[in-house]
Amino acid sequence: MLARAQRLRKNLPAARQGRGFRPVVRNCGHNGPPATCHHGWVSDDSSWLQRAIELATDSVSDGGGPFGAVIVRDGVEIAAGQNRVTSNFDPTAHAEVQAIRTACTALGEFSLAGCTVYASCEPCPMCLAACLWARVDRIVYAADRDDAARGGFDDRRFYELFTRPRAEWEVAVKSLRLPEAEMPFHAWRAREDRHLY
Amino acid sequence: MLARAQRLRKNLPAARQGRGFRPVVRNCGHNGPPATCHHGWVSDDSSWLQRAIELATDSVSDGGGPFGAVIVRDGVEIAAGQNRVTSNFDPTAHAEVQAIRTACTALGEFSLAGCTVYASCEPCPMCLAACLWARVDRIVYAADRDDAARGGFDDRRFYELFTRPRAEWEVAVKSLRLPEAEMPFHAWRAREDRHLY
Repeated sequence: MLARAQRLRKNLPAARQGRGFRPVVRNCGHNGPPATCHHGWVSDDSSWLQRAIELATDSVSDGGGPFGAVIVRDGVEIAAGQNRVTSNFDPTAHAEVQAIRTACTALGEFSLAGCTVYASCEPCPMCLAACLWARVDRIVYAADRDDAARGGFDDRRFYELFTRPRAEWEVAVKSLRLPEAEMPFHAWRAREDRHLY
Repeated sequence: MLARAQRLRKNLPAARQGRGFRPVVRNCGHNGPPATCHHGWVSDDSSWLQRAIELATDSVSDGGGPFGAVIVRDGVEIAAGQNRVTSNFDPTAHAEVQAIRTACTALGEFSLAGCTVYASCEPCPMCLAACLWARVDRIVYAADRDDAARGGFDDRRFYELFTRPRAEWEVAVKSLRLPEAEMPFHAWRAREDRHLY
């Protein structure tokens, strides 16, 4: 898998420009990746966010949910994602999660340090925590949890749930501390070649 | 994809018994799925949770993180998951997320209503929200965020972060409300055959 990732990484700037995406300045004639271009390439937050919004609108046409995301490092698009919850039978297939997974596979890394996530809508608690685990530097979003609520989505409700004691939740969340509860962590700490993330 | 899901669903009770798992009572001689057995099959929270802990310990041996999860409906194991963050280059490949994805693919559904998630350790905010999006009925866990912290994991830190204003976070989370922010939701509401989840 590492060899494949290295090949992908090598080809990344050319391969990840995104179908149909028009950056703000693209006619400088410079052939290198945008981040190294000194001819006036502009890759500001607004244009990347517009791309995320386009992905979200396109997702609806394709039968997905109205959410899109782009992951950018050093002015280069690493990955894009669209909501595929119902079409893929995957409740975790939110746009940001899809983009994170694609970006990490492309880079052959489990950290996206140095990256910015552009999301058409405020990340839900799952996606926000996914961004934290992925160690991204920044998250920029356009619409918010109230827009999502008007679309019929539970992002705002779940954020509110996180602020309330679990005893009040409809979903039962139960701690059952078995005697062997710590065994996996004992095994973990005993392994010298463990990789923290 | 649906046809494959239907095949999987048909074969589920036989296919999902899990390698090496010993339920509390297994020698009743009944051939049907456990949930329909009236000969004394016991599938209580403790035994399912023990299976999740075994998966977590096995995961460490396989080079994964020390986390495991099982999803159960009507006394039948639908799916199991182990942490594969570093081995799969996927920061979202926590045990619960892996199990949710596998269960939904197996059932051909994007809802796990009626299911219980057994997790070797308290779900992090990402996994907890994933369980909410998956509409599970119950979550039962053994170790907690403090055990995870002693293992070097950030679950507790991220829970604490969720209670603090984002302006205080190290990760920049920025709202940039472009004029076209609501366009994906307009497209969504205009689509009569949309599937909410």
